[in-house]
Amino acid sequence: MPKFTVTFQPSGATVSVRKGVTIVEAATAAGLTVAAPCGGLGRCGKCVVQVRSGAGRPSAAEQRRFSAEELAEGYRLACQAGVTGECEVFVPETSLIHRHRIVSEGIGREIEIEPNVEKMVWHLSPPSKDDTRPDLQRLLDALDDDIVPVADPELLRDLPNTLRGSEFRVTSVVWDRTLLAVEPGDTTHDSYGAAVDIGTTTVVLYLCHLPTGEVVSVVSDLNPQAQYGDDVISRITVAMQQEGGLETLHRAICASIDELIGRAAEAAGVARAQIYELAVVGNTCMHHLFLGVSPQGLSAIPFTPAFQEGRNVRAAELGLSIHPGGMVYVVPNIGGFVGADTVGVIIASELDQPDAPRAAVDIGTNGEIVVARDSQLYACSTAAGPAFEGARIRQGMRAAAGAIDAVSIDGEVHYHVIGEAPPRGLCGSGLVDAVAGLVRAGVVTESGRLLGADELPPAAEKVKGRVVRNEGGLGFVLATAEETGAEPVTLTARDIRALQLAKGAIYAGITLLLDRLGLTPRDLECLLLAGAFGNYIRRESAIAIGLVPDLPDDRIRSVGNAAGLGARLVLSSRSLRRRAEEVSRRVEHVELSEQEGFYDRFAEAMALRPLPRSD
Amino acid sequence: MPKFTVTFQPSGATVSVRKGVTIVEAATAAGLTVAAPCGGLGRCGKCVVQVRSGAGRPSAAEQRRFSAEELAEGYRLACQAGVTGECEVFVPETSLIHRHRIVSEGIGREIEIEPNVEKMVWHLSPPSKDDTRPDLQRLLDALDDDIVPVADPELLRDLPNTLRGSEFRVTSVVWDRTLLAVEPGDTTHDSYGAAVDIGTTTVVLYLCHLPTGEVVSVVSDLNPQAQYGDDVISRITVAMQQEGGLETLHRAICASIDELIGRAAEAAGVARAQIYELAVVGNTCMHHLFLGVSPQGLSAIPFTPAFQEGRNVRAAELGLSIHPGGMVYVVPNIGGFVGADTVGVIIASELDQPDAPRAAVDIGTNGEIVVARDSQLYACSTAAGPAFEGARIRQGMRAAAGAIDAVSIDGEVHYHVIGEAPPRGLCGSGLVDAVAGLVRAGVVTESGRLLGADELPPAAEKVKGRVVRNEGGLGFVLATAEETGAEPVTLTARDIRALQLAKGAIYAGITLLLDRLGLTPRDLECLLLAGAFGNYIRRESAIAIGLVPDLPDDRIRSVGNAAGLGARLVLSSRSLRRRAEEVSRRVEHVELSEQEGFYDRFAEAMALRPLPRSD
Repeated sequence: MPKFTVTFQPSGATVSVRKGVTIVEAATAAGLTVAAPCGGLGRCGKCVVQVRSGAGRPSAAEQRRFSAEELAEGYRLACQAGVTGECEVFVPETSLIHRHRIVSEGIGREIEIEPNVEKMVWHLSPPSKDDTRPDLQRLLDALDDDIVPVADPELLRDLPNTLRGSEFRVTSVVWDRTLLAVEPGDTTHDSYGAAVDIGTTTVVLYLCHLPTGEVVSVVSDLNPQAQYGDDVISRITVAMQQEGGLETLHRAICASIDELIGRAAEAAGVARAQIYELAVVGNTCMHHLFLGVSPQGLSAIPFTPAFQEGRNVRAAELGLSIHPGGMVYVVPNIGGFVGADTVGVIIASELDQPDAPRAAVDIGTNGEIVVARDSQLYACSTAAGPAFEGARIRQGMRAAAGAIDAVSIDGEVHYHVIGEAPPRGLCGSGLVDAVAGLVRAGVVTESGRLLGADELPPAAEKVKGRVVRNEGGLGFVLATAEETGAEPVTLTARDIRALQLAKGAIYAGITLLLDRLGLTPRDLECLLLAGAFGNYIRRESAIAIGLVPDLPDDRIRSVGNAAGLGARLVLSSRSLRRRAEEVSRRVEHVELSEQEGFYDRFAEAMALRPLPRSD
Repeated sequence: MPKFTVTFQPSGATVSVRKGVTIVEAATAAGLTVAAPCGGLGRCGKCVVQVRSGAGRPSAAEQRRFSAEELAEGYRLACQAGVTGECEVFVPETSLIHRHRIVSEGIGREIEIEPNVEKMVWHLSPPSKDDTRPDLQRLLDALDDDIVPVADPELLRDLPNTLRGSEFRVTSVVWDRTLLAVEPGDTTHDSYGAAVDIGTTTVVLYLCHLPTGEVVSVVSDLNPQAQYGDDVISRITVAMQQEGGLETLHRAICASIDELIGRAAEAAGVARAQIYELAVVGNTCMHHLFLGVSPQGLSAIPFTPAFQEGRNVRAAELGLSIHPGGMVYVVPNIGGFVGADTVGVIIASELDQPDAPRAAVDIGTNGEIVVARDSQLYACSTAAGPAFEGARIRQGMRAAAGAIDAVSIDGEVHYHVIGEAPPRGLCGSGLVDAVAGLVRAGVVTESGRLLGADELPPAAEKVKGRVVRNEGGLGFVLATAEETGAEPVTLTARDIRALQLAKGAIYAGITLLLDRLGLTPRDLECLLLAGAFGNYIRRESAIAIGLVPDLPDDRIRSVGNAAGLGARLVLSSRSLRRRAEEVSRRVEHVELSEQEGFYDRFAEAMALRPLPRSD
């Protein structure tokens, strides 16, 4: 039987195949994966290619799909066209299955891109005497059987004009199994979505090109709700007790996200109407406030959220201006304050997959902890965070210009300041460094007491002058007035206590969850530090003060904004979205304050030394 | 085995049953049909009764459903409670299956009331340490498995407050399989819907109590689009050619319906928020304009609607103010101009059921015709109507005060005027009477020519003076200036021609459709006249001029606003709604102008004589 050479462009790959083999099969033999989700039935139209000679006659399915001009130009469905001679095939990018490495700082996943929004181009036959099907039916007959038109009539109001104005060549926009819109001509490339991470303090938005999964711009801003309180409890109080408080907080976050959408779209040169979907993560409280749902159930024991499951909401309902039919997928919650952000961390780090014992600690304004072994998962939250973001620390500040972000004390005090600026305050990583250094220098005891100048050990002689007594009690001057050009940057005894409370809760949480698995921190094969703070913290300091377990360096990994990465993943992959739903139901939420022995462990974990005790 | 007497209140029915028989079974034996759609599993909670002694201990299902106080007051599920002694049972109206006769003028159907909106009352257990299910889950666990919460977060925003503010006793509002709202306390009785018939000229709204199917108020108004043209073609022209025309027409009809909702609600003492669903019928053009959908496909052969299938739309999207989550069900179309109103006529008259040959003619501004035999259905529309509603007739008017609505000519001219008013014009039934009388008197020939005064036969001598020649041609004075106190009411030769065109199209349509079934008008077992006009027309006149086939009196029935009755039926019955969907697909639409021989028949049918020819 004769063999023919098929050359694929633009890659130039060639393959020799027998007569009659389809172009999809030839492409597979040449190492290209052409999309054919309908199984080669000629229905889905995903495998459009352009063939220069050497392919048989167009099938009925191809004649339905392409106009006479297009067939003349060699447009074919690769699943239908058989090789009948030497041939050259041009495979457009949109006909290939994309596997993309979706990466963030410190973590990445290679996934198959299968967004929830799919665009397909059609050449429909116009109505005739013998074919008076309604316009919508004409299009639905071309689409998969289970696709239903959107309920909102507005989106299909122009359908008769769109069809007749484009000579019946249109692009369908299908979200999930819903026909969302019909656009004139071929707009398949213009398809965007955004992943949004609503932190208690910071909101980050990633604008992504849906067909490829690539991030085209990233923008962020402070959560405007911060003016109503820096932690979730104060937000809940405002929502419940202030007249119109819930509505105010809800509108504030939606307006902020809408502004981020505008900035991201402008930066990438994308129109708002080309954005069809948002995937949103946040802790339970942020989730409720974003949706405008009363957080009353979160205000008192036993801390029950209003909703757990993921929700699809019209963007317009939330005042978000994207495509008029655009949707918002809000990732599901786990329970208590452990929300969609933690589901995102789990999906990004694959903690839900069978594997050795692992844990993830996401330190933001709230601290969330997940432990996992062999697909068994436990999660909890601690209200520990604000200390690390500067709140609750007298001269605390975020990691911005003027923040002391690294400190070492070897007799003298050395520090590093962010930006070309005199020191103004202390951010989270600087705080951890400073306390670790002071413990090592003997200025602070393991129990957290800042010694008076007269109690200092001889080795601390050189820093003796830095111990001062202010109106608030004892303090340690990290940067003098001379260095700052203004007031000195001083760490107070109260600041040290705040750090102890925060890190004690986190560490106690880790050990209590590990208890459920019958494990101790030493059994962890891997500890993931998520959140911006996880990227900046110096591990030796974090270990020295017992903020994280004392594990070998290669078993601790910083994974950056894993919650945001999780949002990007569920935006890009329907199967990961299903996994997120499943994860949210499977993870067992543990309410720390209800656990027997929590307060004992908490007290023990407040000690400023490596934990578990290295003896 | 001992037998016990069970007495049911308020009916007083008694029955003697063996020990252990459930109250549902006892009720059935006593001739009452207690609702138990869950099949007696204790899940649906439809069969709530109050029992005075003589029933066993509450089951687990009953304990979940009722509070301790309620159990103490004897509240039970009739499917769970077994008879253990003499007992008296109070059966609330809401626990009975309602079969209601839904009637309109001239037609009625007894159906099982099963509206698409169902309310159920629940007593949920509050969260506890051992039960931290999210609020929504708590409710969904009580509801049927396949019920999903509404996507719009607004409707469930207050769920945490509603539950906690009502001690977890709430009423769920389920539309189709969607949880639409949760209301504090027991609101099961407060559940309303509206059936709307959008005519080209008149809009009618029936406000119905959903649990019983009863109409609580009826209101109507002129379709405000009438100012943009009296027939569908002129509306389509405005929608397509005037800047913002479609939006204007869309807003006008929605605003009008919203006002009717307000009037109907006020008349019945119902709050708008207690109305959860609308069911809407209208011809294809009215349907498109109501939804704001471009009628471009209806503007030219082959007349293709944008949508066929029924649609569920949020009332808020259309600017209709009912319950914030309220829905609008728009009944499906058939094809061309034959729309949801005709589906309504078919459902109301059961033309879709296997039976002898029947036909329905709905004469409104458009005239729609359906013929049926043994579930085979054909339908067409004619643009015939305006003549019967007064348009296209020089002194035509609607059937209002001052309209001549009946005419007889026996040498002298006799007429009847609506209301205590001098004659001002001529409505449809008067027009048909007048022309029939003039033909009988020999003043108008069978071919439709109004004879000159000098051509009149001797028998018409007395009315000779009434034949006048005006600027527009010949005319016949029905009411003299003396009688009107103003200008005379004159029927013109042109008016007679307009009537001929209209009735010719209708009659030709009937025969052409019957052709498809291999039948002639004489084979019709029943001819239904729908529309207000069908109620007022004098049959002998309609037969005399060949507007309707010459059939014995008992085979012609006036059925009033059958389209509106159809809307009421689909509002009250899910199974009839499914049937409407099926009917819309099954009826074959025939485009008259495309039919071979249509114009011959049309010309023939214009003759002013009984048809088919009685020879």
